[in-house]
Amino acid sequence: MTAQLSKKGEAWSARFSEPVSDLVKRYTASVFFDKRLALFDIAGSLAHAEMLAAQQIISAEDRADIERGMAQIKGEIEAGSFEWLLDLEDVHLNIEKRLTELVGDAGKRLHTGRSRNDQVATDIRLYVRTAIDDIVVLLNGLRTALTDLAEQNADTIMPGFTHMQVAQPITFGHHMLAYVEMFGRDVERMQDTRKRVNRLPLGAAALAGTTFPIDRERVARTLGFDDVCHNSLDAVSDRDFAIEFCAAGALVMTHISRMSEELVIWMSPRVGFIDIADRFCTGSSIMPQKKNPDVPELARGKTGRVYGHLTSLLTLMKGQPLAYNKDNQEDKEPLFDTVDTLVDTLRIFADMAGAITVKPENMRAAALQGYATATDLADYLVKKGLPFRDAHEAVARAVRACDDLKCDLAEMSLDQLRAFSSLIGEDVFAVLTLEGSVAARDHVGGTAPRQVRAAIARVRAQLAG
Amino acid sequence: MTAQLSKKGEAWSARFSEPVSDLVKRYTASVFFDKRLALFDIAGSLAHAEMLAAQQIISAEDRADIERGMAQIKGEIEAGSFEWLLDLEDVHLNIEKRLTELVGDAGKRLHTGRSRNDQVATDIRLYVRTAIDDIVVLLNGLRTALTDLAEQNADTIMPGFTHMQVAQPITFGHHMLAYVEMFGRDVERMQDTRKRVNRLPLGAAALAGTTFPIDRERVARTLGFDDVCHNSLDAVSDRDFAIEFCAAGALVMTHISRMSEELVIWMSPRVGFIDIADRFCTGSSIMPQKKNPDVPELARGKTGRVYGHLTSLLTLMKGQPLAYNKDNQEDKEPLFDTVDTLVDTLRIFADMAGAITVKPENMRAAALQGYATATDLADYLVKKGLPFRDAHEAVARAVRACDDLKCDLAEMSLDQLRAFSSLIGEDVFAVLTLEGSVAARDHVGGTAPRQVRAAIARVRAQLAG
Amino acid sequence: MTAQLSKKGEAWSARFSEPVSDLVKRYTASVFFDKRLALFDIAGSLAHAEMLAAQQIISAEDRADIERGMAQIKGEIEAGSFEWLLDLEDVHLNIEKRLTELVGDAGKRLHTGRSRNDQVATDIRLYVRTAIDDIVVLLNGLRTALTDLAEQNADTIMPGFTHMQVAQPITFGHHMLAYVEMFGRDVERMQDTRKRVNRLPLGAAALAGTTFPIDRERVARTLGFDDVCHNSLDAVSDRDFAIEFCAAGALVMTHISRMSEELVIWMSPRVGFIDIADRFCTGSSIMPQKKNPDVPELARGKTGRVYGHLTSLLTLMKGQPLAYNKDNQEDKEPLFDTVDTLVDTLRIFADMAGAITVKPENMRAAALQGYATATDLADYLVKKGLPFRDAHEAVARAVRACDDLKCDLAEMSLDQLRAFSSLIGEDVFAVLTLEGSVAARDHVGGTAPRQVRAAIARVRAQLAG
Amino acid sequence: MTAQLSKKGEAWSARFSEPVSDLVKRYTASVFFDKRLALFDIAGSLAHAEMLAAQQIISAEDRADIERGMAQIKGEIEAGSFEWLLDLEDVHLNIEKRLTELVGDAGKRLHTGRSRNDQVATDIRLYVRTAIDDIVVLLNGLRTALTDLAEQNADTIMPGFTHMQVAQPITFGHHMLAYVEMFGRDVERMQDTRKRVNRLPLGAAALAGTTFPIDRERVARTLGFDDVCHNSLDAVSDRDFAIEFCAAGALVMTHISRMSEELVIWMSPRVGFIDIADRFCTGSSIMPQKKNPDVPELARGKTGRVYGHLTSLLTLMKGQPLAYNKDNQEDKEPLFDTVDTLVDTLRIFADMAGAITVKPENMRAAALQGYATATDLADYLVKKGLPFRDAHEAVARAVRACDDLKCDLAEMSLDQLRAFSSLIGEDVFAVLTLEGSVAARDHVGGTAPRQVRAAIARVRAQLAG
Repeated sequence: MTAQLSKKGEAWSARFSEPVSDLVKRYTASVFFDKRLALFDIAGSLAHAEMLAAQQIISAEDRADIERGMAQIKGEIEAGSFEWLLDLEDVHLNIEKRLTELVGDAGKRLHTGRSRNDQVATDIRLYVRTAIDDIVVLLNGLRTALTDLAEQNADTIMPGFTHMQVAQPITFGHHMLAYVEMFGRDVERMQDTRKRVNRLPLGAAALAGTTFPIDRERVARTLGFDDVCHNSLDAVSDRDFAIEFCAAGALVMTHISRMSEELVIWMSPRVGFIDIADRFCTGSSIMPQKKNPDVPELARGKTGRVYGHLTSLLTLMKGQPLAYNKDNQEDKEPLFDTVDTLVDTLRIFADMAGAITVKPENMRAAALQGYATATDLADYLVKKGLPFRDAHEAVARAVRACDDLKCDLAEMSLDQLRAFSSLIGEDVFAVLTLEGSVAARDHVGGTAPRQVRAAIARVRAQLAG
Repeated sequence: MTAQLSKKGEAWSARFSEPVSDLVKRYTASVFFDKRLALFDIAGSLAHAEMLAAQQIISAEDRADIERGMAQIKGEIEAGSFEWLLDLEDVHLNIEKRLTELVGDAGKRLHTGRSRNDQVATDIRLYVRTAIDDIVVLLNGLRTALTDLAEQNADTIMPGFTHMQVAQPITFGHHMLAYVEMFGRDVERMQDTRKRVNRLPLGAAALAGTTFPIDRERVARTLGFDDVCHNSLDAVSDRDFAIEFCAAGALVMTHISRMSEELVIWMSPRVGFIDIADRFCTGSSIMPQKKNPDVPELARGKTGRVYGHLTSLLTLMKGQPLAYNKDNQEDKEPLFDTVDTLVDTLRIFADMAGAITVKPENMRAAALQGYATATDLADYLVKKGLPFRDAHEAVARAVRACDDLKCDLAEMSLDQLRAFSSLIGEDVFAVLTLEGSVAARDHVGGTAPRQVRAAIARVRAQLAG
Repeated sequence: MTAQLSKKGEAWSARFSEPVSDLVKRYTASVFFDKRLALFDIAGSLAHAEMLAAQQIISAEDRADIERGMAQIKGEIEAGSFEWLLDLEDVHLNIEKRLTELVGDAGKRLHTGRSRNDQVATDIRLYVRTAIDDIVVLLNGLRTALTDLAEQNADTIMPGFTHMQVAQPITFGHHMLAYVEMFGRDVERMQDTRKRVNRLPLGAAALAGTTFPIDRERVARTLGFDDVCHNSLDAVSDRDFAIEFCAAGALVMTHISRMSEELVIWMSPRVGFIDIADRFCTGSSIMPQKKNPDVPELARGKTGRVYGHLTSLLTLMKGQPLAYNKDNQEDKEPLFDTVDTLVDTLRIFADMAGAITVKPENMRAAALQGYATATDLADYLVKKGLPFRDAHEAVARAVRACDDLKCDLAEMSLDQLRAFSSLIGEDVFAVLTLEGSVAARDHVGGTAPRQVRAAIARVRAQLAG
Repeated sequence: MTAQLSKKGEAWSARFSEPVSDLVKRYTASVFFDKRLALFDIAGSLAHAEMLAAQQIISAEDRADIERGMAQIKGEIEAGSFEWLLDLEDVHLNIEKRLTELVGDAGKRLHTGRSRNDQVATDIRLYVRTAIDDIVVLLNGLRTALTDLAEQNADTIMPGFTHMQVAQPITFGHHMLAYVEMFGRDVERMQDTRKRVNRLPLGAAALAGTTFPIDRERVARTLGFDDVCHNSLDAVSDRDFAIEFCAAGALVMTHISRMSEELVIWMSPRVGFIDIADRFCTGSSIMPQKKNPDVPELARGKTGRVYGHLTSLLTLMKGQPLAYNKDNQEDKEPLFDTVDTLVDTLRIFADMAGAITVKPENMRAAALQGYATATDLADYLVKKGLPFRDAHEAVARAVRACDDLKCDLAEMSLDQLRAFSSLIGEDVFAVLTLEGSVAARDHVGGTAPRQVRAAIARVRAQLAG
C-alpha cells in the first residue's frame, strides 16, 4: 500500500499546488463574500463620520473628505471597477484602504471609536433588514397571486385529503387560501424578527465601548435603527437575529415544500388536477414525451439548503464564549444564501401561481371516489337526533355496503339507505351532493364558497394594509 | 454465515417476543405521551360543549352531563386513578370513552361538529401557550438573578476577551448584563411566538369545517384565544407554531450553552475566576480531589437535544401535503421535551446564578496579563491629534517592546513610552490603569460602572414592567 | 403588567413545587434512562473482575464474591425487584452499592483500576453492538419480505416515474428491488460501523490509564471485542461510534421515508396501485369511510426523530475539549430512541411488506397514460441508424401529435408514425407495447423480468450468506 | 401602510429588475456549479463511447470522432477558454453541444443508451471517489504531523483534564495521540464510504435501463469502479453515498472543532500552554496588542457549515419518491463545499501542527494545581490492601486537609499523611510526583512515556502501511 499511498500523495501534491501560506490567507479572508455588504458598510461609515464630526471627535473637513471619498468608492463599486484585494482580508479594510488612498489622514481617522467587530455587526443588520423588507414584499406578492387563483376557483370542487385519502369535498379556492394563511404567518414572523434586527451595535467598538464621547442614538437615527444595543459585549457577539431570520426562512421553505409537493402530485398524470405552464417545466434528455414540474421540485429540494443553513448557524454559536470570536465570520454565507434562495423562490412562485391551469373535471371525478360525503350523512343523522358516535357507526356500515355494491352513497336508493337508519328521509340526497356538502360548511374558516369569498375579502384588505 | 445469522435470528426472536400486531398498536398509539394533554383536552371539550349548548346543537342537559362527567374524570386523572388504555389509542378517545361510561348519550354527542384533528391542534396550542407563559417567568427570574449578580459586581474588573485573548478590561457586572440582554430577547421571541400560538383551530373539524351552526369566536373567548384560525385546512395542518417555539427554545439553549462554556472555563483552576456552590457540582468515582461543574456542562450538552428537536419538527413538516397526516403525531414528544429541558434548565440556572462566588483578585491578575489597556493608549494618541490608524501602529510597536522587556505598558517609563510617540505625556498613566480604562467607556452600552448601574436600573424597570 | 406577572409567578410556583435542590439531583442523574444498560454493565464488571483476579490485583475469593453478588443482582433486575435509587445517580453506582451490600469488601474492590468514564463507555459500546446485530437481522428480514414481494411481481407492469411523471414502463418487482438494494447498503453501513464500535475502552480509567497491572486484551477477549482503544484520553471521550451509528440509522429512515411516501401515494384512491392490510391502517373519528395508511405515514414522520437525534449528538460533541465532560451524559437518550425507532419500524415494515395487495390493472392503466414507450421508439430509430439526438426530436414531434389526437403512440397507424420518420416499419408495434418495452431492458440492473429474477437470485444468495 | 408597502414594492422592483423567465432559467440551471464535474463527465463519456463501439452500438469512426472532440474540449476547459452557456442548463449539455459542433453526428450518437440521470450519478461518484482519496492522504498527513509533535513531547507533562478540572497528569504527547486516533477513525470511515461510492450507475439510463446491448461491467472496469449498481431505479436515485460522505466529513469536523477548542484555550494567556506561529493568527483593527488564533477559531466555526450540509442532504432525500426528481440537483453544492472545507482545513492543520510551540513550564505549573496525583495515592492504598472505595474516601479527606493548609499532597509530611491512613509509608512520595504518576500508567493506551512511544511506533507503521 505504500507505493499506492505515495502515488496518491504525489497526485495530490500536483492537484493542490497552492502554498499553505496563500491558502491560510484565502482561508481566513472574507472579502470574496462580504464584499456584498459594501454599500451597507459605506452607509454605516458615513453615519459614523457624521456623528464623529457632530461630536467634534473629527473635524468638519475630515467628514467632508470622507464623504467625498466614499462617494467615489461607491461609484467605483457600482461600476464594477473597484479592485478587491485578498490581502486586505475583508470588505471593511478594502474600503478603508481605498479611502485613505483617496483622502489621506481623514481616512485613517474614520476608524476612531469603532472596531471591525461592531462595524461588521452593523453592516450585517442593515443587510438583513433590507432582505426582510424585500421578502415581506415578495411574500405578499405570492399571497396576492394565490388569492387571485383562489377567487377564480372559489366554487371549484375538489376532494379534500387527509392521509392522502379522500376525506370531504372542499373547493380549490379554499385550499389555496390555506397557503395564503401560511405565507401570512411568514410575513408576521419576518416583521417580528425585524424588530430585533433593527438595533444598532455600532459604538460597542471591540467589545467594551470606546473612550470617545460618541452619540450612539444619533447614529441609530441616521441609519433608521429603532434602538441601540444596550450592552457592548452582547452587541458584538449577538447573532441571534441571523438565526431567528434563518428560522423564519426555514418555515417559509417548509410552506414552499408543502405547496411544491402538492403541485407535483397534482400534475402527475394519474391525478391530473392541474397543469403548470411550460416555462416552469423542462423535458428529458432521453424521454421525448416528458414535461417535468422542475420548479416546484427544485424548490422542494432547496428546503434542505435553508434547513441546513439554520443548522450551521446554531452550531456556530453553540458554546461560544464572549465576546467576538473568528468563528463568527462564518455567519455570512449561510445568511446570504438563505436570502437568495427565498428571494428567487418567492418571485418565481408568485409568477407560477398565475400560470397554473386548473382541471375542474378531474378534481370533481376524484371527489366522487371515496365517499367524500359520508360525514355529511353522519351529521344529517345527528341533526335527526342520533348521538354523533352512533351516527358515525351507522354510516360506517352504509359505506361498507357501498363498497360491496361498488356504488357511491348518493347512488343508493332511499330504502337501501334506510336499512342503516330509519331516521333517513328523502331530504338526505341534497346532503349527499358535493355542492351541498361544501355549501353546508358555512362558518368562519369553513370551505363554503360564501366563506371562501369572505376570506378573500379579508386577505385583500390586509394586503391593501 | 448462515448458521450465525440464523442464530442471531433466534436470539432476536427471543428478545423481541411481542407479536407484530401488538407492536403496531403500540407504534401507532400516542396515549403514552399525549395523556400529558389531558387537562387541556378537558378544558377544550368543556368550551366546545358550552358553545354547542348555546347554539342549541346539544341540549342544556347534555351539557350539564358532560360537565359533571368531565369534573369526575379530571378528579380521577389528578388522583392518578384514571385508567389509560392503549387500545383507545390516544388521550382524546380515552377521555371520551370514560365520559360515555359515566354519562351515556351526552358523551356520544360531545364530538358533534369537531374532529380529533382540530381537537388535538387545540390541545397542543393550549399546552404551548401555558409553556410559553411559564418560560417567560423563568427567563425573567434568571434575568433578575443575573442582574443581582451584576449589581454586586458593577465595579469588579476582569479581562474582556475576544478570541479568548485578553482584549480590554471590563467589569464582571457588564459581562453578566450581556446575558441579561440575550435572555431578554428570548423573552421577546417567546411573546411574539405566543401571538401565533394563541389562535383557535377548533371548528376546522376534520379539515373542511362542519355542517353544524357553530360559533367559533365564542369558543375562542372561553378559552382565552386571541383569534380563530381563518382557514380550516390550515388549522388542522399548521405546526408552524411548534417549530417557531422550538426555534425560540433553541436560541435560549444557545445562550445557556455560551454561559455554561464560560462558567466551565472560569472555574477551571488555571483560570480561577469563579467558584460554583457544591450543590451544582459532583465529584469523581475515581479521583478523590475532583469538583466538577456538572450543571453547566450538562446544560451545554442539552443544547444538542433542543437543536435536535427543532431539526425533527422541520423534517417532519417538509413536503407534507395538506391536510392532516399521521406524521403529525410525531410533533408532540420533541415539543414536550423542549419545554421540560427549558423549564428545568432555567430554574436551575436562576438558582445557580446566586451561588456563584466571584474571585476578583484572579480576575484582576488576568486583566493585567496581555496589555489590556493598549487600545486606551491608542485612543489617547488620537485625542492628541494622531489619526487612529497611525496611533494603532505606534502602540503595536510599544507592545512589541514590552513583550521583549517582559513588562506591561503601565510599567514602562515615560521616556520609554515617548520613544513610540512624542505626543505622550505624564497624563498617560491614568489612561493605562484598569480603572481608568473601564471608567472611560462611558456611553450607553459601555462597560463604565456608571453605565453598568444605569443598565441595571433599566432592566429592573423592565422586569417590574 | 406587574400584577399579571406576579400572578403568573404564583401560578408557576404552584406548578413547579419541587425544590431546586431535588431538581438538580434529578437534572444530573441518569439512572432513569441508563438503567437500560444494567445487564451490559454487569457483563463488563464480571469481565473486569475476572481479569483483576487473573492479574492477582484482587483475590480469587473477591472474584467469587463479586460473581455471586452480580448473579443475584441480575436476577433482581430481571425480576423487576431491583430498587433503583435516584440518590445513587446512575446505573453504575446503583449496582455497585447493591453489590457491596451483598458481598461487602469485594464489592468495594471491584472499581479498582477503572473509572465510571471507561465503564460507561464500555457499557454503551456493548449496547450499540447488540443493537447493530439486531438491526442487521431486521434489515435482512425486511429485505427478504421485499424480495418475496418482488418475486410475486416480477412480471407486473407499472409506470416508472421520474418527476412523478410517467417515464417508462417497469415491473413492480423491479421497483421493490430498488428498496432491497437500499436496505442492503444500510446493512453494510451497520456492519462497517460495528468495527469501530467493537473496541474496548475499559482500562482507560478516568482518562490516563491506571497504575494497576491490568490486561486489557484479556478483557477484550472475554467481552468479544475485536481490539482495545489505543489511547486512554480518546477512549473515554470518543462518541464517534454513536454518531456514526445514528448517521447510518438516519439513512435507514431516509429509505423508510421514501418507501412510505410511495406507499401513501400508491394507496391514494386516485392512484390505486396497492392496498395495505387493515391492521396497518386506522379509521377516522369523524369520517366513517376512511382507511388511512397510518403506519407508513407515521414511519415517514419518525424520520424527523432520527435526523434530530443525529443533530443532537453532533451538536453535543462540537467543540468539546478532552477528555470526559458531563455533556456526554446526553449521548444516551438519542441513541436509545434511535435504536427503538429502527427496531420497531423495521419489524413492522417487514410484516407490512407481506400485507400489500397489488392492483395490477390500475398499474397497467397508469402505464398506458403518458407515452411510456416513447423512449423505445427513439431507441428503435437509433437502431435503424438515426443519431440519438435526432431520434429524440422525431419522437417528441410524434408525442405532440398524439397529444392533439388524444391517442397513445401504439394507437397510431403505421402511416401516421411514418410521418415522423420514414425509418419506421411494421416491426415498430412490438416495441411500443408495455411488455416489449420492459423485456427489452435486458442487462444487469435493467427492468426486464429475466433480470429481475436474476437479481432476486443474487439477493437470496446474499441473504443465505 | 399602503403607501409604504407600494413604496417598498417599487424599491423592490428596482432592485430585482431581472425578468422572471430569465430568473427561472437561472434558478433551474446547474452549469454554474456542476461545471466543476467537467473532467469527470468527459471521462465517463469516453468510457461509455468505448463500450458502445466495443458492443458495435456505434462505429469505430464515431468513437474516434468522439475521442478527438473530447480531447479538444478538455483542452479548452483546462485553458479556461470553454464557453459555458446558461441556456444549455448543465455541464452535460454544454459539453455534448460543443462535441456535436466539433464532430457532428458522432456527438449526437454519444447519448445512445444513457440518460442525464445515470450520467450525472456517474460523474458525481467519480468526483466523490477522488475527493475521498485526497482527504485520506490529507488526514494521514495531519496524523503524521501530530505524531511528530507527540514524539517531541512524549515526556512533556501537562495536566489531564476532565470537566476542565485538573484530573491526572498526562503527557502532551499522549494528548496529541488522542487526535491521531480520532483522525485515524476518520480515515477508516472514508475508506468504508468509498466502497459504496465506487459502484457504477451508468447503464441505468433514465430509470429502467436501456434497450441497447450495453456492457456495464466493461464501463466499470474502464473507470475503475469495483462493481455496478444492481438496480436501475436505485442507481439513478441513490444519494446515500453523498450523505454518508458528508456524515463522515461531519465527524472529521467534530474532531477539528475539539482540537481547535483546545488550541484556543491553550493559547489563552491565562492558560498559556502553547503558542501558534504568527502566520496562523491575525491582529485586531483596534487593539494593537492582539494576536488571535484565527485559524482554529475559524475551523471551529466551519464545523457548522459541514453539519449544515449534512442536514441539507438528509432533508433533500426525506420522503422523495422514486426514481429521479429535480430535487436531486441540490445534492451538489453541499457536497462540493464539504469537500473544499475538509481539504483546506486538513491541509492547514497539518501545517499548523508543526507550528505549535509548547510551553512545558506552564503545563507543569498547571499540573501542580489541583491535586493531580490524588488517584495515585488511592491506588497506593489499594495496593497496601485497602478496598478501592475506602481508599477513595481516605484520600478525599487528605485533599480536604490540603485545601485548608493550602498545600499539595506531596508537600505534606509523612506524619500528616499517615493521619489519613496508617498504611502510608515513606515510599508514598515517589507515587505523588508527576513523573511517577505518569510512568505508572504503563499499559496499552496508558499515558506512560514508554506507552506513548509504543503508540507512536504503531501509528508510524500504520501510516507507512
